[in-house]
Amino acid sequence: MGLAQSPDPLPSWKDTPSREAILAFVDQVTDKTSADYVAPAERIATFDNDGTLWSEKPLYFQLMFAIDRVKMLAPQHPDWETQEPYASLLKGDTKTFATGGMRAIGELLKTTHTGMTATEFEALVSDWLASARHPTTGRAYTEMVYQPMLELLDYLRSNGFKTFIVSGGGLDFMRPWVEKVYGIPPEQVVGSSRRTVYEVREGKPVLVRLPEIAFVDDKAGKPVGIHTHIGRRPLMAVGNSDGDLEMMQYTAAGEGPRLMVYVHHTDEAREWAYDRDSAVGRFDKGLDEARARGWTVIDMKRDWKVIYPDPKP
Amino acid sequence: MGLAQSPDPLPSWKDTPSREAILAFVDQVTDKTSADYVAPAERIATFDNDGTLWSEKPLYFQLMFAIDRVKMLAPQHPDWETQEPYASLLKGDTKTFATGGMRAIGELLKTTHTGMTATEFEALVSDWLASARHPTTGRAYTEMVYQPMLELLDYLRSNGFKTFIVSGGGLDFMRPWVEKVYGIPPEQVVGSSRRTVYEVREGKPVLVRLPEIAFVDDKAGKPVGIHTHIGRRPLMAVGNSDGDLEMMQYTAAGEGPRLMVYVHHTDEAREWAYDRDSAVGRFDKGLDEARARGWTVIDMKRDWKVIYPDPKP
Ligand SMILES: [Ca+2]
Ligand SMILES: [Ca+2]
Repeated sequence: MGLAQSPDPLPSWKDTPSREAILAFVDQVTDKTSADYVAPAERIATFDNDGTLWSEKPLYFQLMFAIDRVKMLAPQHPDWETQEPYASLLKGDTKTFATGGMRAIGELLKTTHTGMTATEFEALVSDWLASARHPTTGRAYTEMVYQPMLELLDYLRSNGFKTFIVSGGGLDFMRPWVEKVYGIPPEQVVGSSRRTVYEVREGKPVLVRLPEIAFVDDKAGKPVGIHTHIGRRPLMAVGNSDGDLEMMQYTAAGEGPRLMVYVHHTDEAREWAYDRDSAVGRFDKGLDEARARGWTVIDMKRDWKVIYPDPKP
Repeated sequence: MGLAQSPDPLPSWKDTPSREAILAFVDQVTDKTSADYVAPAERIATFDNDGTLWSEKPLYFQLMFAIDRVKMLAPQHPDWETQEPYASLLKGDTKTFATGGMRAIGELLKTTHTGMTATEFEALVSDWLASARHPTTGRAYTEMVYQPMLELLDYLRSNGFKTFIVSGGGLDFMRPWVEKVYGIPPEQVVGSSRRTVYEVREGKPVLVRLPEIAFVDDKAGKPVGIHTHIGRRPLMAVGNSDGDLEMMQYTAAGEGPRLMVYVHHTDEAREWAYDRDSAVGRFDKGLDEARARGWTVIDMKRDWKVIYPDPKP
């Protein structure tokens, strides 16, 4: 409005079509004189987490937490030395663990993520994040978030958007840290969850995490999670894998302008490069549909000046 | 801050201990110099809906909607003329219907609330609210909300509170109208829900409401719904029945000051008077515990100058 130039809201983004598409979309829906103007209440932006806001290699960071927890619990479970999937994990052999597929992952998560109260689980996650370091970068996991995405979240919020996480990851695994790291409050996190029950233990109300899965917020579950939790269709959705495709389709099917953004991991030097053949974060059908329908596909190598924030001093 | 007196934030509340307790609590947690100061992000207030924000007699208004829908659907279901619980409802005999208990209610809700898409259901609710009138007051149902509660919601929000509904009622029954009526956006509504699935029908993504119950947000379900949806313990909780007791206990168990408020229906002349023996909105154990623990119990007759807002012209 004035003569002064406003500072670049996306300083870590190169001047490429991805950046242009985002800026043009936000201008379009926030311009009161535009036919495509959208009221602030409807400016809902949903972000996948793993591979979209932070890295996900060599394994989803939630699995890294689970594996570290297996190691911590092992002294109380001598049988694990010979029992899969624990035996492999205790030997550091994630390859044999991976051959167990979803069944092994399910067993691992059940053992490490349930049986305690919600408050106890939150403390386990917070303690782990405070000390754990990524095996190849040596960074804290919460410092492996994408600087360009932190800027995008801020930029959207400063334009009246409400930013949500919609992740296949565990709701209670994300909530202890996402407010501090992404500026996203716990009530704006949609995720997978375990059945949780209310109990009074020694006169104190607690919430207990049971082994049963309550909701899987992935693939066709994402539009359901969005509907149940938010109750509005996103104006904009951001993801990185086939697990986000239904969220993209649901977003695209809304009336008026919508922005669908996929992150393509193309930067082997600064992060990882993977898509169609990756077990973690497979991006195959989603890539085809994004190209066919003209959705925005961020090329990490080409579009981003930096990947991670400067490490905290 | 200035010399001018600020306008009374709760003009429909009489000057009684209930009003005093609310004002004192809000002062206490928002005063930056107080040891009990609470940051705005943690100022979560959860409100039950039926009997707390609007009336619930002769039956929960959601059941009135269901019964009207049975009447509308009856021509397509000739068998309902002899089949319970429909036969009684079609004759206007809610007494016989009520003898069917939860089983009859479950059947009624399944028939009238599922099988359609989420968008179709939303339209059914909105259309009904636009034309239906309460059998004894003749008011639109959305004009049977409590004026003192509308003021309380505004007052809390103007003091940095985030206001949520946490109701045993259907999530998708509330969302079409609560933003306009209470100023509570759909993403701040926690309620009971049906299993919902994502499908692509004729190329269009839709969410389909299935008969299975996904979550019951009542009694011990309320703290679970709060945890799953909000992820923070309420600073303040407001309800009117035994169905809210676990929410109150969970709130009270938090550290620092917490405010638990019960609405007691004591005004037979202006609304209804009921508590321990009422099938709808039974307030028995909750009343005992509120008295024993010194929670705030609003006496509608004594504490409120008016019940409903002036009718819209
Ligand atoms: Ca992902
Ligand atoms: Ca109630």
